[in-house]
Amino acid sequence: MKNAVIAQSGGPTSVINNSLRGVIDELNLSKKINKIYGAKMGILGVLKEELVDISAQGSHQIALLAETPSAGTIGSCRYKIKSDEDLARIIEVFKKHEIGYFFYCGGGDSMDTANKVSKLAQKENLELICTGIPKTIDNDVGGPLQADGTFAVCDHNPGYGSVARNLAINILEANEENKASYTSDPVLVIGVMGRKIGFIPAAARLADPGKKIPLLIILPEALSKDDYLGNLEFITEKVNKKLKDFGRCIVVIGEGVELGDLGILKDSFGHPQFSASERTVEQLLINYLNGTDKKDEKGQAQSRLIVRGIARSERPGTRQRREIAYVSEVDKEEAYQVGVYAAQIALSGENGLMSTITRKPGGIYKITYDKVPLEVVANSERKFPQEWISADKVDVTDDFINWAQPLIGGPLPCFAQFEEIYVSKKCREYVPVEYRK
Amino acid sequence: MKNAVIAQSGGPTSVINNSLRGVIDELNLSKKINKIYGAKMGILGVLKEELVDISAQGSHQIALLAETPSAGTIGSCRYKIKSDEDLARIIEVFKKHEIGYFFYCGGGDSMDTANKVSKLAQKENLELICTGIPKTIDNDVGGPLQADGTFAVCDHNPGYGSVARNLAINILEANEENKASYTSDPVLVIGVMGRKIGFIPAAARLADPGKKIPLLIILPEALSKDDYLGNLEFITEKVNKKLKDFGRCIVVIGEGVELGDLGILKDSFGHPQFSASERTVEQLLINYLNGTDKKDEKGQAQSRLIVRGIARSERPGTRQRREIAYVSEVDKEEAYQVGVYAAQIALSGENGLMSTITRKPGGIYKITYDKVPLEVVANSERKFPQEWISADKVDVTDDFINWAQPLIGGPLPCFAQFEEIYVSKKCREYVPVEYRK
Repeated sequence: MKNAVIAQSGGPTSVINNSLRGVIDELNLSKKINKIYGAKMGILGVLKEELVDISAQGSHQIALLAETPSAGTIGSCRYKIKSDEDLARIIEVFKKHEIGYFFYCGGGDSMDTANKVSKLAQKENLELICTGIPKTIDNDVGGPLQADGTFAVCDHNPGYGSVARNLAINILEANEENKASYTSDPVLVIGVMGRKIGFIPAAARLADPGKKIPLLIILPEALSKDDYLGNLEFITEKVNKKLKDFGRCIVVIGEGVELGDLGILKDSFGHPQFSASERTVEQLLINYLNGTDKKDEKGQAQSRLIVRGIARSERPGTRQRREIAYVSEVDKEEAYQVGVYAAQIALSGENGLMSTITRKPGGIYKITYDKVPLEVVANSERKFPQEWISADKVDVTDDFINWAQPLIGGPLPCFAQFEEIYVSKKCREYVPVEYRK
Repeated sequence: MKNAVIAQSGGPTSVINNSLRGVIDELNLSKKINKIYGAKMGILGVLKEELVDISAQGSHQIALLAETPSAGTIGSCRYKIKSDEDLARIIEVFKKHEIGYFFYCGGGDSMDTANKVSKLAQKENLELICTGIPKTIDNDVGGPLQADGTFAVCDHNPGYGSVARNLAINILEANEENKASYTSDPVLVIGVMGRKIGFIPAAARLADPGKKIPLLIILPEALSKDDYLGNLEFITEKVNKKLKDFGRCIVVIGEGVELGDLGILKDSFGHPQFSASERTVEQLLINYLNGTDKKDEKGQAQSRLIVRGIARSERPGTRQRREIAYVSEVDKEEAYQVGVYAAQIALSGENGLMSTITRKPGGIYKITYDKVPLEVVANSERKFPQEWISADKVDVTDDFINWAQPLIGGPLPCFAQFEEIYVSKKCREYVPVEYRK
């Protein structure tokens, strides 16, 4: 009997604890496993030999993982293994603690690390099975879109369905807000996660597949990569078109859209940390819309909006990936099963694989759990398909909707919608006094 | 038989539609009422004679108001009635449409307007009953804290309980995020609503009455009103104390805390629109913590944090007052009953009153619905009690918790919490390579 270590890497998701639970439940059924350890704060916990004894936790706590968002139970980290010394240390710790199974839940970089650990273990004659579990909200782990409408390597990453559902519901609620407030706040700008990748902002469209809400979706891939002023002008024009037609507008913008220097700090992977930038896209955009760069002699901003009122911004931030009330049941179940399947792969004795989700082509949503070499994942790259960006550059196509819709689970909330039955007018026309200015 | 008009004013809440529903349900039971109209976009709908026929809507839509957040059904506005001409126009429209009942749901300014409309109607011999319905998320409508521990005039405003519940759950989820990510992102700053009033940020404490989470609560009333640099230094010191003790920290900061010039735009009431400011407190705070004002010759920011990693910020914005999943059931029911009671006041023939919530003193939560003259409300002012700010200025007292706890409804989510059972160490000490730099 050997012990098993589970580690998590990178940003959490709403359902990553379900993958953890899946691995634990499955390992607990096996006679090959002695103890299950959790690496405290990801791979740092291995390096620092800080291993939480998961086998010593009550079964109630394991069950509660199902309803616990984010990755606070054993923790995660953004530490990148770059040196052979760190790799050797991992092997040293695994040897001393009789680790036979290493599960690494993370993105592409983590699969690369798991692969390196596996290679070194073989060289050092350590019997170690390394198994990857995919997890991102950005949905960037896997290969490109294939001709059959599914993605190669990993159709979608556990965690994405929930952040997509979260944003879809956010937009439905934002629409109620915007309908309520547009006479003073006609434009609501929501800056969302996803770095330079558009899968998250694209999910806003799932709120309104019929395109009735005055919604603009700005993906990093749709706009210029360097002409920030051109991008600001372009978005402003689109906003004003919506204001002309609807009197109001909701803008969802990916945090990685090029709108000027954000003063971005980077994590140890070299990834930009948009959450800690000096400025943010939604702030830059509303400042431009509100014309704070053009102040008159009294210091009053000169708005670029064609209607009365202001553009306001918000930034749900990490809450996008940790709201338990908006978890997609489909995503949650898949995250669990991907964990279960990872344990099954490992227990079968196969090494160097990632548990993955393969989707059957066609109109009916059907997936199978599958395995793929860590090396393949580490060298895969997924971008948001250019062909899913609509011709006007401020929306996504129905192909995206068809692909993404099943991932967000059950029906979205349904809100009251009064019919526009107005009482017949009996008075003269009137312009409110404050509106004459 | 006369017709009734309902109008909404100012920022929406998650439960304002329940007050609307309460009024409608109660009026529908009365034989004194012919038709019920909704003023489209608040008082602007009266001025512009845009009246939605609520009586013509299906009963299913009225029922759906219970589950519909914000005020998008008939809309609201931030238009302030300043001139006699506008007031006269309101009377003109009411006369032409045989309006006998006017319900105005809003904050203190709206109660003032309703009072003025009532006065002018009497002068013009229009039989009109004007009734106010309180609604704010800031909880600033009503009088001061009394010796018995309840607030005068209106103990708490419908809408506040839900925004408080929303923030409490946000903090529990943020804690999972912060526990997961602190090795790279030790500080999470959440900027919340409430303008210059601390009731909203204070509600963060309801997540953790036992004070186990490393949480700082920064109320506008607790810090200096002009020394922004002193405030930044003070908060930084408190953050670093938490980092020293816990390695991580969550900061909840009210949008109206003085941290420097935000470049704020104002609405027509003259209220600052923090949502449309050029800069935000949470951004100013993380920039200071991350030391973006102190860059070295390579352009690298010089962090003021005593630990590795960065401070990140988020801004839930209007989502605080429109997430249907986090509505307080207590708040929802009270919002409904305040609407019902307003209709009862009006139907009884009493004019110039606001429906209100009176709380019984003592440990057991008990309220009664009551009435108070509009004039009293219009001249009331509520501030966050200074005595509820803790001595260290970064928290609230148990008296606040005891007062606020019943307002947020049922139990908060419970998340998995592993016991800190670590595997015994067997290897030498090790510092990860990247941490030696």
